[in-house]
Amino acid sequence: MKSFVLFACFAGALTCAVAAAQELPYRGQNLLAVPADYREWLFLTSSLDLNYNGAAENPSVLDNVFVNPEAYKAFTKTGTWPDKTIIVKENRIAASAGTISKNGKFQTQVVDMEMHVKDEGRFTGKWAFFMSSDGKSPGVLVPMSVNCYSCHGEHGAVDNTFVQFYPTLLDIAKNNGTLSGGYLKDTRALAGAGK
Amino acid sequence: MKSFVLFACFAGALTCAVAAAQELPYRGQNLLAVPADYREWLFLTSSLDLNYNGAAENPSVLDNVFVNPEAYKAFTKTGTWPDKTIIVKENRIAASAGTISKNGKFQTQVVDMEMHVKDEGRFTGKWAFFMSSDGKSPGVLVPMSVNCYSCHGEHGAVDNTFVQFYPTLLDIAKNNGTLSGGYLKDTRALAGAGK
Repeated sequence: MKSFVLFACFAGALTCAVAAAQELPYRGQNLLAVPADYREWLFLTSSLDLNYNGAAENPSVLDNVFVNPEAYKAFTKTGTWPDKTIIVKENRIAASAGTISKNGKFQTQVVDMEMHVKDEGRFTGKWAFFMSSDGKSPGVLVPMSVNCYSCHGEHGAVDNTFVQFYPTLLDIAKNNGTLSGGYLKDTRALAGAGK
Repeated sequence: MKSFVLFACFAGALTCAVAAAQELPYRGQNLLAVPADYREWLFLTSSLDLNYNGAAENPSVLDNVFVNPEAYKAFTKTGTWPDKTIIVKENRIAASAGTISKNGKFQTQVVDMEMHVKDEGRFTGKWAFFMSSDGKSPGVLVPMSVNCYSCHGEHGAVDNTFVQFYPTLLDIAKNNGTLSGGYLKDTRALAGAGK
């Protein structure tokens, strides 16, 4: 391993992070620890109050999505996610007052955290969600019966993930032909509705 | 250099990135190239339509702020920025329709980009802003007479930068006693106004 790290690190930070990649940090049957260094992973996007039911968010939330460097590096080459991918969605309060800023919203404390992991040998459907109630305590496995699984499976642009909201990855998926049939169907329907 | 990289990289990605840090990518007297790998730098925050004049943004913009790994590592140790810091603020369209999302805003294409660099030997006041009109072409130096310099100098929480909007760095600055007098004065005024 050391010799590989030695070799890899001459190529720079990302390759070095890949060499240092770890297994998924399970804590027993249904818990996943929050990765200690996820804020130093690759940033994918930040969104405000995204949801799929049209309800207003209370409190208003800005999320930050990060992925482990090894999975990011694989995606940039193949347009899809490798086994052992960890996507972290950190949800923070979107504050709009209390500073010199006179407009807009900015991020303050963490509300909670969603972790979406790919572990082909462990989960039916290969992917699982874990929810950390405070962004620090281990995430609890979300039951496979919850509709976030079916929604991600049916509408995620790439392999159960909403790459349609990750602007730097969407073109990579297009170029690699890895966009899902469900996403392409949604896109055609939305284009038709816009006519 | 190689021996340092070899040594540093055993500590993982961030240290390795530090070892691979580069000089500021000037292009002539008043131009700064957009760093090719800034999306793999350290993410600091994302905000929606922040401004200081109260005007509504058109188009609505979600920004992403990144800093070079060497500067980030130094800040985590000292609570302030070293020479040759590069802070990139990538501004993207905040879209609110055209997907299965029924609420909120998400990021699409880059509108433009602001780069804030610290170069003590080159600039009066040590810092300078460069604006890239499309996020790809080199940034153009913003004249020192523009009020963004005075505003950052008077209200930035740490050394001319708005660390008050970088939630993971603000506590580090507090713990290191590097918060600016101007920021502390603003905080007291806002607290008083809230009574």
